Amino acid sequence: MSETTSDRPILSAERLVMFTDAVAAIAITLLILPLMESVSEVSGEENFGEFVRDHVGQFGAFALSFAVIFRLWWAHHQLFRHITRLHTWIVRWSLIWTFAIVLLPIPTALITAYRPSAGTVALYGGALCLASGSLLMLGWYGHRHPELSDDGVPVSRDQVLGSAAAFGIELVATVIGAAFADTINFWAFLLMFLSGPLQATVRSRWTRTGS
Amino acid sequence: MSETTSDRPILSAERLVMFTDAVAAIAITLLILPLMESVSEVSGEENFGEFVRDHVGQFGAFALSFAVIFRLWWAHHQLFRHITRLHTWIVRWSLIWTFAIVLLPIPTALITAYRPSAGTVALYGGALCLASGSLLMLGWYGHRHPELSDDGVPVSRDQVLGSAAAFGIELVATVIGAAFADTINFWAFLLMFLSGPLQATVRSRWTRTGS
Amino acid sequence: MSETTSDRPILSAERLVMFTDAVAAIAITLLILPLMESVSEVSGEENFGEFVRDHVGQFGAFALSFAVIFRLWWAHHQLFRHITRLHTWIVRWSLIWTFAIVLLPIPTALITAYRPSAGTVALYGGALCLASGSLLMLGWYGHRHPELSDDGVPVSRDQVLGSAAAFGIELVATVIGAAFADTINFWAFLLMFLSGPLQATVRSRWTRTGS
Amino acid sequence: MSETTSDRPILSAERLVMFTDAVAAIAITLLILPLMESVSEVSGEENFGEFVRDHVGQFGAFALSFAVIFRLWWAHHQLFRHITRLHTWIVRWSLIWTFAIVLLPIPTALITAYRPSAGTVALYGGALCLASGSLLMLGWYGHRHPELSDDGVPVSRDQVLGSAAAFGIELVATVIGAAFADTINFWAFLLMFLSGPLQATVRSRWTRTGS
Repeated sequence: MSETTSDRPILSAERLVMFTDAVAAIAITLLILPLMESVSEVSGEENFGEFVRDHVGQFGAFALSFAVIFRLWWAHHQLFRHITRLHTWIVRWSLIWTFAIVLLPIPTALITAYRPSAGTVALYGGALCLASGSLLMLGWYGHRHPELSDDGVPVSRDQVLGSAAAFGIELVATVIGAAFADTINFWAFLLMFLSGPLQATVRSRWTRTGS
Repeated sequence: MSETTSDRPILSAERLVMFTDAVAAIAITLLILPLMESVSEVSGEENFGEFVRDHVGQFGAFALSFAVIFRLWWAHHQLFRHITRLHTWIVRWSLIWTFAIVLLPIPTALITAYRPSAGTVALYGGALCLASGSLLMLGWYGHRHPELSDDGVPVSRDQVLGSAAAFGIELVATVIGAAFADTINFWAFLLMFLSGPLQATVRSRWTRTGS
Repeated sequence: MSETTSDRPILSAERLVMFTDAVAAIAITLLILPLMESVSEVSGEENFGEFVRDHVGQFGAFALSFAVIFRLWWAHHQLFRHITRLHTWIVRWSLIWTFAIVLLPIPTALITAYRPSAGTVALYGGALCLASGSLLMLGWYGHRHPELSDDGVPVSRDQVLGSAAAFGIELVATVIGAAFADTINFWAFLLMFLSGPLQATVRSRWTRTGS
Repeated sequence: MSETTSDRPILSAERLVMFTDAVAAIAITLLILPLMESVSEVSGEENFGEFVRDHVGQFGAFALSFAVIFRLWWAHHQLFRHITRLHTWIVRWSLIWTFAIVLLPIPTALITAYRPSAGTVALYGGALCLASGSLLMLGWYGHRHPELSDDGVPVSRDQVLGSAAAFGIELVATVIGAAFADTINFWAFLLMFLSGPLQATVRSRWTRTGS
């Protein structure tokens, strides 16, 4: 997996990107499976209104994870505009990212199977941190290696900062959610929606102070 | 998700289109799962003829939703011939469209799990309206922004009208089907097959009164 | 679905082909699900040798349908080398083909859930005939419309004859298998592997007699 | 499937590669299904810590097979950089490779359903050997037919040797694991991670002795 890439610098990233896209598309669709399972267990005598009330949590977990995977995929999309050639480390961190994406349906399903605990919050947050952490490493590597970009424009410092902010927020959300598992738990992950404004702030401050 | 796109106007829509295609392909295939579940529950002593009679409704729901997703995908295909560059709003409405497509197998499975009620018809129709509504927004945005099209030809007014007609028909079908849940229910969605002729009528009238 | 394509003759078939490829790839992979279901029902006390003996039929059905879908996909591949532009009828027959491919896992699962009967053989054969019949219609349409091919070389008469032979063989296999459901049943579909030699014979005879 | 390719030497491998990529992406994602099944069987009264302890083996099997499929896909990626045109044998061996990849989730699920035995180890190893054996055949065929590569550079001898080493190691691991099913069993497959260093050694020695 290692030696054969490094001595062929012009290996296109296209097929790797399509493979990771396909995996993300499948994982985001598999999120629906626990809900389909619940429907298949319906006895036919239950009331539809009851069904909705019983599974509103499951639906919320589905919607949260759908937004999370779409966001992670979009961040990946942003990054690989500037990484069009492969390197061993790009493949390795992509393997980790793909692994985290495929794993996410599990903690999503656990959210509703168990009442929130430090363990379930940590598992969900851990998968998130693994995904956004590998994105950070990919971005940092792409930032340092302009030769991986066809047009010579590497991943920008702004993008690396943005990835770092997203990773940091998820780490903080995981710690807070796990520490206050009885009260805050999964609501901590709503912090993620702060990453846009935070990135804007960081960027404007950075721009003002120079560079 | 927002700032980084707007300042790079020439971001190609290609990868987003492939991602949504993959999601639609998976969702259309997952429609078969409830039927596979039913087959796996066969005890081996039942009569095959009985099985067919018992599951003809489930098969009908599968065929209806298959046609619906294929039609929605085709409308998406028509639209994105004229949207070849990305903008934040294109990404956002694509997220909604993808969400609605992934959700559709659930109301499809509910159709046969419960007897038709205002709730189940509204859920099915709601997912449909979400999908065709986001298509309408995508089309309208593309119509107003010719710069999103590589060849400078934006989404045409005809296409926007067609999307609006499809959305309107689905809204009407949902209301009628939910109001008369005991008698009409899901048959109301057959109204959708009127959207072709309706578009043709609207278009020819519009053309006559001047462009 | 209809009017908008016909007045834009240069609509590329690329996205439709990728969509049908994705559907075929998912359907061929879903064939494994009944076997996975069986594994998940293992109690842990059973003997592994017993498991293999009990599910050898299920494995055979999986292998047969895997070969069938791969073959159908390959025939589709051969055809669309000469169909690179879309037309309404190309889209419609592709819808039918896709529907048949998505359906195939169901009769595959039924093969082992019920003992062979005229009904199960007819269902399996019906799905096959639907798939190869729509391929035949696609081929015939492509043969008659050279304008659908980028390089002006339409689908050849040989290819149409090959599709017709495949369709004919499957029709005959279905009738024979259903008529002798107690003895021949699904073994009739091994006739399909004759379609290669048959095509070669038909082609050489045709070539000899002219044109 | 056979005759029609050989007389058209410039048939691009692109669509076949995308199809196999899609199948590999789906198979690698389906590995998560047994874990999702386990989550859906949670009664809600169990302790989350217990769940983790009970399913650590299942998780290990998932992670092992994830790494295995990713590695096989990557080897396929490396190979098809030099195979850009199709030939009948390329299609046939790709069919075998795809079959092995789709099959892999089954022995993965069996790992935890049964205690390790010669049979389960042999099944897992057999699927691995089928996959890497067909890669070896593809590589060897591509090495011998430079006309299958667009730029005239065929699959190198190094790559064939690497594929042969990977195949050999998996064969040895299967035999050892099955022979010592009580003690070594699936741990034998960790030998695979030696294939990188082994390839490097073989290559450097080969280079020293000539060519």
